[in-house]
Amino acid sequence: MPSISSKGLAMPESPIRKLVPYAEEATKQGKEIFYLNIGQPDIKTPQVALDAVKNNDLEIISYSHSAGFATYREKLAKYYQKVGLPVEAEDIIITTGGSEALLFAMGSITDPNDEVIIPEPFYANYNGFATSAGVNVVPVQAKFEDGFALPPVSEFEKLITDKTKAIVICNPGNPTGYLYTKDEMDQLSALAKKYDLFLVADEVYREFAYEGLKHHSVMNQEGLEQNAIMIDSVSKRYSMCGARIGCLVSKNKELISTAMKFAQARLSPPTFAQIASEAALDTPQSYFDDVIEEYVDRRDTLIEGLKSIEGVEVAKPNGAFYCIAQLPVADADHFAKWLLESFDKDGKTVMVAPAEGFYSTPKTGMNQVRIAYVLEKEHLLEAIEILKAALKKYNEIHGAS
Amino acid sequence: MPSISSKGLAMPESPIRKLVPYAEEATKQGKEIFYLNIGQPDIKTPQVALDAVKNNDLEIISYSHSAGFATYREKLAKYYQKVGLPVEAEDIIITTGGSEALLFAMGSITDPNDEVIIPEPFYANYNGFATSAGVNVVPVQAKFEDGFALPPVSEFEKLITDKTKAIVICNPGNPTGYLYTKDEMDQLSALAKKYDLFLVADEVYREFAYEGLKHHSVMNQEGLEQNAIMIDSVSKRYSMCGARIGCLVSKNKELISTAMKFAQARLSPPTFAQIASEAALDTPQSYFDDVIEEYVDRRDTLIEGLKSIEGVEVAKPNGAFYCIAQLPVADADHFAKWLLESFDKDGKTVMVAPAEGFYSTPKTGMNQVRIAYVLEKEHLLEAIEILKAALKKYNEIHGAS
Ligand SMILES: Cc1ncc(COP(=O)(O)O)c(C=O)c1O
Ligand SMILES: Cc1ncc(COP(=O)(O)O)c(C=O)c1O
Repeated sequence: MPSISSKGLAMPESPIRKLVPYAEEATKQGKEIFYLNIGQPDIKTPQVALDAVKNNDLEIISYSHSAGFATYREKLAKYYQKVGLPVEAEDIIITTGGSEALLFAMGSITDPNDEVIIPEPFYANYNGFATSAGVNVVPVQAKFEDGFALPPVSEFEKLITDKTKAIVICNPGNPTGYLYTKDEMDQLSALAKKYDLFLVADEVYREFAYEGLKHHSVMNQEGLEQNAIMIDSVSKRYSMCGARIGCLVSKNKELISTAMKFAQARLSPPTFAQIASEAALDTPQSYFDDVIEEYVDRRDTLIEGLKSIEGVEVAKPNGAFYCIAQLPVADADHFAKWLLESFDKDGKTVMVAPAEGFYSTPKTGMNQVRIAYVLEKEHLLEAIEILKAALKKYNEIHGAS
Repeated sequence: MPSISSKGLAMPESPIRKLVPYAEEATKQGKEIFYLNIGQPDIKTPQVALDAVKNNDLEIISYSHSAGFATYREKLAKYYQKVGLPVEAEDIIITTGGSEALLFAMGSITDPNDEVIIPEPFYANYNGFATSAGVNVVPVQAKFEDGFALPPVSEFEKLITDKTKAIVICNPGNPTGYLYTKDEMDQLSALAKKYDLFLVADEVYREFAYEGLKHHSVMNQEGLEQNAIMIDSVSKRYSMCGARIGCLVSKNKELISTAMKFAQARLSPPTFAQIASEAALDTPQSYFDDVIEEYVDRRDTLIEGLKSIEGVEVAKPNGAFYCIAQLPVADADHFAKWLLESFDKDGKTVMVAPAEGFYSTPKTGMNQVRIAYVLEKEHLLEAIEILKAALKKYNEIHGAS
């Protein structure tokens, strides 16, 4: 029998998917599950985007330009300019989700055995993209106790070798919800310039910044033009994850022309989704105001609820729609499985994402879970009650930690 | 300034794109161009597919399953069964175009510095996918004189090393239009089994087989279940290249579960396009009958026309919608540029794809071009007249070769 590649064998399974068979089994048993584990918002996609697809009158769905519709790139550049980012159409390559933008960035700046430094915990699929490119992720640990603020620059410097090609950040962070300050962005920029590294900023949650805090884009870092790569996506901004449209943005022309070769090899990004994404740029501000209000409300509900549970601590998120909670259990992975397999409150249970999978350092974050607040308030309140009862029962059985 | 990866620098430019700036310049000068260089059909997308998208009533465009809609996979399996391929839903991963299926296959079966053997000339983007995976393409030459039939097995055997992981074929072939016989498929299967190699068959043109000839799918090769990987796509079958839906198919469970990890890392294939593709399965047979009739007519027109030009020879294609023509010029690349830059017949010219870019061996196919018959008959006839006049003039200036 022919053999699978070492790379293929090394490809990590998504930490969120690992629990799926347990959830399926629980559903079969008739349990109702509150999904606190996923990043799929329940917010409606803007009507303008849906209508544009319904009203399209294409008769042939042809390949588009490999960099995406010219009209979309122009309009997207205007959008960035409006929110204060100095981006031109020629700085943009439209991709199949932020995911593909990450792949193109990785391919353009790293060779096998190169290293990228990423503050952990981080979006778990960075591991998949790195493995598939043969690149080593070098984690620098952000601390729960510090609310997941940027680790000291000295910690990064200790890890930089001649194999280091980039620092990758997610801002605001998945899974932490942490929003980098201007000072932190300046520190990262100075570091990238000092060591000639790319600074890849995954800003797919850019619009989700709370408490009136400002989001500081990598594209606004002065003097960083040749080092900065921004990853963006329509998935979360317009609640259209399934469209599969994102983009890679940079002022570095060599980077863009390299990424274009990867883009050409795969021909083009999806046409219907580009139609939706281009139209989505006309989404009225009121949509976002409502969405942000909704998320702030959910976040406050969740944080307050979690804090009311004995032994639970939370790093308060200022962005995105996730938080990391520390639970009074020794092994959150075991607890998460137990929630699905052996627990219910009136026929209902919750699904959470064990945080261990978001750390690159083994045996880290073992008592932490990521909780997404993508459910409406009533469901969140109910989920919190279930979690509270579950923790009590779990610790009666397994002994509090 | 941070540096681009060696891989990024090595990424080939598409041979079709290289001439694009010349075409843009010609258009600016007011020339009308007949595009014989591209694989974008002018055939209408089936109405059922377009209507399904227009009538969809989704309110949230969410991520689908990473392997694609369950309903689509089921229905697609039935489609394959109907055309005689023993495929179950669980053997299928829906991908973002056949392109992504090729990437997943490459990632699942090769590591950097591994080798894949491919009969040349071949679809040029195989080079891009191989480069991005760090894999070496080892060409085995199919001959114009043999109509691009399968090279003798002994030629393959000479090239097999312990780094060889797969043989990749395109059937029917782009750029050759060659359709493998049952005997050739058996030879390839025996070879794959003897050396424990994967046999990856890119069958995106499967429906385009002419003269009543039967297409022999890799999925029908008995005893090859563990070695066979089929690549498919809706792009050409339903003239919906821009949808970006394809699939990877295999009975090898380890291969499928490995490819699934790549699929999970990128989350999901595009939703609107899956809706279109699922509905496209209801396309009436009359659509295909008409399309095939149209292509046969175009092919005959093109072949006859080309043969009527002094010094031009053609390898008659039995499938897909391309052919390779040998021209009475020493350097088809120079000629193709000249067509755009310096020639016109009543303000019109043609664009062809120099075949050199489809060969992996340097300086091969220098006097060949790929011509696609994706234009309607009248345009093809006109394009042939232009080509005839152009060759005459070119050889008056540059001397016949
Ligand atoms: C931090 C982060 N980056 C990138 C992505 C990829 O999103 P997409 O490919 O849908 O744009 C996600 C999706 O959850 C994410 O959370
Ligand atoms: C031989 C071959 N394989 C694969 C593809 C990729 O097609 P897609 O990604 O649109 O399915 C093409 C497109 O032209 C092709 O000609």
